[in-house]
Amino acid sequence: MRLSRFGEKMTNDTGICRLMDDLGEALAGPREMLMLGAGNPAHIPEVQKVFRGVMEDILSRPGEYERLISNYDGPEGNKEFLEELATLFRNEFGWNITGKNICLTNGSQLSFFMLFNMFAGDYADGSRRKVLLPLAPEYIGYADSGLTPDFFAAVKPEIHHLDEQTFKYMVDFEALEVTDEIGAICASRPTNPTGNVLTDGEITKLAALARQNGIPLILDNAYGTPFPDIIFSDARPYYDDNTIVCMSMSKIGLPVVRTGIIIAREEIARRVANMNAVLSLAPNGMGPALLGPLVRSGEVLRVSREMVKPFYRRKAFAAAAQLREALRDVDFHIHKPEGALFLWLWFRDLPITSHEFYERLRARGVLVLPGHYFFPGIDEPWRHKQECLRVTYAGPDDIVERGLAIIADEAKKAYAEAKSAVAVK
Amino acid sequence: MRLSRFGEKMTNDTGICRLMDDLGEALAGPREMLMLGAGNPAHIPEVQKVFRGVMEDILSRPGEYERLISNYDGPEGNKEFLEELATLFRNEFGWNITGKNICLTNGSQLSFFMLFNMFAGDYADGSRRKVLLPLAPEYIGYADSGLTPDFFAAVKPEIHHLDEQTFKYMVDFEALEVTDEIGAICASRPTNPTGNVLTDGEITKLAALARQNGIPLILDNAYGTPFPDIIFSDARPYYDDNTIVCMSMSKIGLPVVRTGIIIAREEIARRVANMNAVLSLAPNGMGPALLGPLVRSGEVLRVSREMVKPFYRRKAFAAAAQLREALRDVDFHIHKPEGALFLWLWFRDLPITSHEFYERLRARGVLVLPGHYFFPGIDEPWRHKQECLRVTYAGPDDIVERGLAIIADEAKKAYAEAKSAVAVK
Repeated sequence: MRLSRFGEKMTNDTGICRLMDDLGEALAGPREMLMLGAGNPAHIPEVQKVFRGVMEDILSRPGEYERLISNYDGPEGNKEFLEELATLFRNEFGWNITGKNICLTNGSQLSFFMLFNMFAGDYADGSRRKVLLPLAPEYIGYADSGLTPDFFAAVKPEIHHLDEQTFKYMVDFEALEVTDEIGAICASRPTNPTGNVLTDGEITKLAALARQNGIPLILDNAYGTPFPDIIFSDARPYYDDNTIVCMSMSKIGLPVVRTGIIIAREEIARRVANMNAVLSLAPNGMGPALLGPLVRSGEVLRVSREMVKPFYRRKAFAAAAQLREALRDVDFHIHKPEGALFLWLWFRDLPITSHEFYERLRARGVLVLPGHYFFPGIDEPWRHKQECLRVTYAGPDDIVERGLAIIADEAKKAYAEAKSAVAVK
Repeated sequence: MRLSRFGEKMTNDTGICRLMDDLGEALAGPREMLMLGAGNPAHIPEVQKVFRGVMEDILSRPGEYERLISNYDGPEGNKEFLEELATLFRNEFGWNITGKNICLTNGSQLSFFMLFNMFAGDYADGSRRKVLLPLAPEYIGYADSGLTPDFFAAVKPEIHHLDEQTFKYMVDFEALEVTDEIGAICASRPTNPTGNVLTDGEITKLAALARQNGIPLILDNAYGTPFPDIIFSDARPYYDDNTIVCMSMSKIGLPVVRTGIIIAREEIARRVANMNAVLSLAPNGMGPALLGPLVRSGEVLRVSREMVKPFYRRKAFAAAAQLREALRDVDFHIHKPEGALFLWLWFRDLPITSHEFYERLRARGVLVLPGHYFFPGIDEPWRHKQECLRVTYAGPDDIVERGLAIIADEAKKAYAEAKSAVAVK
């Protein structure tokens, strides 16, 4: 089968595809596996109840369900919903936007494919531009989304030790250079995989850098505020007319609908809608139908703040506490849990690679994501890339606890092996 | 704002974007407009009732709605649904497929973006390939989907006059050349915009041509069988391991879910799933949830054959009869209505362009699609491109009737103007 360059690039088994297959096989096998790998949001019964109520309401109003299922939205998505969203953002944050600043997409992953390739890649003048990730580690899902090779630039973070077992990545602005080669700056906030939340100061600096260079700042707000609000620090949400804020409906509890939200200046929102028409015809209408009533009433804020955020915060802190206790005798550090669904574990000077660690854990029935996948744009050898794991704490408490106990046990074994190997020598 | 080539190409106001805006403005204006333009499927109450029943069932089974909304599917889509689909196709048509031959996408439009650019565009060896449309006019939605310029090749059809007022396009196999420049052959069957259905003979020849040339045949079955089965001729469905069959959930009554279905040999289905992971993470899960029970029980066949097909057939034939009667005195021809939601009207030697005709109709409150948009790949001047309109008969009967009456009236006026202009000279 002959394939185009695009076909080869986009359809090959990438590293992450192989990893996903591996995880899938493990889950399909006879053995019970503790799933701390994939990022499926938790099933939060009180949130599910809210969304059940929305569907029951739709069904109870004559003709509403019928209209919903039978119509295409326009390429920008349901217009009423866009206005309601804009009102929410105006009221909550004072952002100067209307519905014309918003465009829906068929999921956040597609938002990034569209935005990245709009601003990076080959230009008509023969130049080629990249997406700058100012703070690696960054989201694994970005890695393959570029249409051109060598699509990302990234800089190694500063590592700030907050206490003996806690660290936080910070942007190394000294090292951060926005050359002519850069077409856009992008960061997830809260960050998948680390749970980092860029500080207000970092964001202000990044926004200024982007503006000075005539390129947009893209903020991936999939876990941020005002929904799902899985954010445990005091960071202020950010938007200006040179910033593109991307949101998702998945993490408040609607991964089924695959709906992304892009907030940007009108010209960009309109261009994304045009691209929707070409790529997708239109975004699906189920997302706006299920989230719309909560946006209209403002209940989306209460659900996020009172149900979603506390649910994850409790789990994040419990998981972090368990690991800190279990790993106090080794050189273990945990990224300060500031948001998202993940803990980012750093085993300093771990004598095995993160892939080997992943495999040992898999053999013991625990699935995690090895950290080296999360450094797109950092090609230089850096031992740190091999010393980290991403674990999801979103699953049921007992599964997370058992999984973390095994991770701690295997880590201690690995350190101990190295010590005894040194002793033997 | 600086944009990449991809950004410029995919986000610019294309002709069709401007047309859509124009239609949107007309609909948003104070005047009542008769919508015979866009392709929204009809609201068929008995079908809507079936899909209401499905959602009520989901809600009535403890935990099912909650599981549905809270989980991501894998990149190939809901596996149980894929197996059920494969069983349906095996039972109905004897196709030798399993669930591994099927991949879902976030809508048929995205299916074509992925498939076209997999097989056409720039190759690693420096060559550039095109998609061959063997029978123009073809679907307007294909036109902008190529990542490289000059993306389509097409040949003018043979025009067979079946009676004084009815014609049918046929593939001109004499003119159809599959050079090294061609990466795939694609045809919609039934065809949007003409309502043509390629004959079994044509399909067999196209499949042989594709195989001989080592390229796939892509069949767009969005209106075809076994669902939604909006097909009024006796054509046999076609699949072989060099053919890629694309289906949609929209026309059976679920445009809201934006779900496309790709059936192909396992390698291709797997590659599309890999591309899903990169572009979309996963297809949405609402489509399989709403259509799945009907596929499992086989009711999807009954709904299509007994509700959907007869509904559209009656409307198609009524609309065609009205036009034939009203336009018997001018050089008017209608493409034999064999399927899909459209009538394709040919006003031979119409003295105005199809765009001007569109504008006159718009001024009289009738929205249609001018025919010249439907000839991607045919760049040579050809008067026929300016002589056709696509009208949708899916709307309420009274609206379709009033709209068609105005179309007939305006056509007669245009012909009469030309005559009197000649007489004056």
